[in-house]
Amino acid sequence: MKSNITDESDESSDCSDTTETDCNTSYFTSYENLEVHRLMLNDRPRTESYRHAILQNRALFQDKIVMDVGCGTGILSLFAAEAGARKVFSIEASNISLIARDIVRQNNFQNIIEVFSCQVEDFILPNSEKVDVIISEWMGFYLLHESMLDSVILARDRFLKDSGTMFPSKASIYACPSNLNGFYEQEIDFWDTVHGYDFSVVKQIVLQNKQQSPQILSVDNSELVAGPEIVKQFNLMNVTVEDVKQFQSKFFTSSMEKNICRGIVLWFDCEFPTELKSENSLILSTAPRCPPTHWKQTVIVLPTEISLQAGDVIGFNIKLSQSATNHRHYNIQVEVLSDEEDHPMPCNCGLARCKLIKTFMQEQDELDGNEVIDIS
Amino acid sequence: MKSNITDESDESSDCSDTTETDCNTSYFTSYENLEVHRLMLNDRPRTESYRHAILQNRALFQDKIVMDVGCGTGILSLFAAEAGARKVFSIEASNISLIARDIVRQNNFQNIIEVFSCQVEDFILPNSEKVDVIISEWMGFYLLHESMLDSVILARDRFLKDSGTMFPSKASIYACPSNLNGFYEQEIDFWDTVHGYDFSVVKQIVLQNKQQSPQILSVDNSELVAGPEIVKQFNLMNVTVEDVKQFQSKFFTSSMEKNICRGIVLWFDCEFPTELKSENSLILSTAPRCPPTHWKQTVIVLPTEISLQAGDVIGFNIKLSQSATNHRHYNIQVEVLSDEEDHPMPCNCGLARCKLIKTFMQEQDELDGNEVIDIS
Repeated sequence: MKSNITDESDESSDCSDTTETDCNTSYFTSYENLEVHRLMLNDRPRTESYRHAILQNRALFQDKIVMDVGCGTGILSLFAAEAGARKVFSIEASNISLIARDIVRQNNFQNIIEVFSCQVEDFILPNSEKVDVIISEWMGFYLLHESMLDSVILARDRFLKDSGTMFPSKASIYACPSNLNGFYEQEIDFWDTVHGYDFSVVKQIVLQNKQQSPQILSVDNSELVAGPEIVKQFNLMNVTVEDVKQFQSKFFTSSMEKNICRGIVLWFDCEFPTELKSENSLILSTAPRCPPTHWKQTVIVLPTEISLQAGDVIGFNIKLSQSATNHRHYNIQVEVLSDEEDHPMPCNCGLARCKLIKTFMQEQDELDGNEVIDIS
Repeated sequence: MKSNITDESDESSDCSDTTETDCNTSYFTSYENLEVHRLMLNDRPRTESYRHAILQNRALFQDKIVMDVGCGTGILSLFAAEAGARKVFSIEASNISLIARDIVRQNNFQNIIEVFSCQVEDFILPNSEKVDVIISEWMGFYLLHESMLDSVILARDRFLKDSGTMFPSKASIYACPSNLNGFYEQEIDFWDTVHGYDFSVVKQIVLQNKQQSPQILSVDNSELVAGPEIVKQFNLMNVTVEDVKQFQSKFFTSSMEKNICRGIVLWFDCEFPTELKSENSLILSTAPRCPPTHWKQTVIVLPTEISLQAGDVIGFNIKLSQSATNHRHYNIQVEVLSDEEDHPMPCNCGLARCKLIKTFMQEQDELDGNEVIDIS
């Protein structure tokens, strides 16, 4: 018995001069790496949310036609079939589709689940009957990294019945200022003194590097220095590709205690529909207070620190826009707003004027019978 | 204050069709990533071994001329300067050399340590005086990955005085059969049942993938199923580039109990010289029984499992050879030997015949006054 092994593992190299095709190739081949799938399947909050949302809402799936956009190993398709779906069209552009097909057969769902090896953009529904439900785990870092939502929107417009259901049905991006204590201790302050020597010149370089791109890391809930704010909410039933391309949000929030603000933490949550209107909808949240997921949180490290006293109001304008050179990436712009800037209405900052306006608007909303969401 | 961030982080893509220049470029740029340096500096067994070996042997450094090959951030050069070196020539091919120069200045060693931004192959010693000591942390996974030893050998041949010292002075590669229980539990058996479904088709694919290339992972000492064997020892004072290019080792070892052998674990250790002959030399070991390092262990997963009873003898031939297409990579070939194969002499397998020969050879060695190393 011989084992012949070549160690061809190489240092990673970033692709530059990316074209649309290149971006797609790199995106789809990366998903063939089974380690990524193990990571995702092993992410219990992620996979269990879908499992509960699907299996505890069998009425939404029983005898229905389902589409799974970007099915990966096919786990969501299996849940849907288990929940009684009559037919599941499972679309997967990467070669993992071949493995998904084997898994489906191994679990005896080949009469229900059909795996298609293509991009959803190229998919044609057999006998052009539309589907009742679209399930998809399309979320990337800070919700939109990799822009898979574009494909889900296209699938909805082309293939979902008017009366159909999106799984998940809503998604929101949140932002909150943070002192980033854990990140600083581990990755930045390390460089102050290394084995007794002054390495502070490295600290400055590392910090500058970290400020150039969003950092994917775990932020502890205690590191948030104010209340979180919603940057953007998407209703999956009617969001458009245009809505996702570029958006911004301005918010003011007040510091809970004497603290320091070194960055903005972004995270997201997703809401799943329920068959019973009365029931609380199931939410998959990647907030710092929730069990950790493979998405962790996304951190924008600010170029300068902001000292805060209890009650101090800080304002931010956050703008996300798809990169012109690679639509799967986003430019994220964070602007710290000055005191003179107008606050939005309503505003959660806690200043007397904003409090008053907010209370007034809530009362109006309640009179109008609108649902009031207050995350402050 | 504005923070403008583009998320250009892309999935890693392996370089194919590598040429010599490509290999070097990819190798040297990867070291500019400061995260890698943080990982290495944070590796206490690694950095503290060098620190102790240098600072507890001041006599070897006092007023000496030292060369640091591949100095990185310059930490070993700082140790050498602290130990009293008159001059340290610190050679670094990647751009981290610029940072090393700043660190040296920040710590007021600019009169002792001189950082050169070049490959050691292109270095010319000012006023061509040779050096007393060469320090270098050149070790890669399974000792030789990245083949930096070639550069250290060249530096020794060109720049070290005949009476000079190599730091470290010896290096050894070890091999040991293992049941790989931890690896199987986490990365292989996971695929048996995923969220209640049979994913065993993936298990086979993952296992085949893992068998194609060496796995860098932490093996627990309890997962070794026999005694370790030395694959190769290098004396840094006289090892040649030819010695490193290709070598093999045949060994037989016996199972300690009823067990299973699923792979061969490789690791290495390095020995540092001491000023006093009587003192135990300091050893940096990356063995499973030692505190974990960033090198972890290297595992060759066998294509088929071998069942073992207590006392069963298993034989392996392990061959390492630099890849023809990229000299920084190695082909590792493991051959399981049949019972009929001749055992080497001496052999640690424990069979009566081998025990007898080994005892006889040891007695002969002792009579001849040779040092006897027995790791069984």
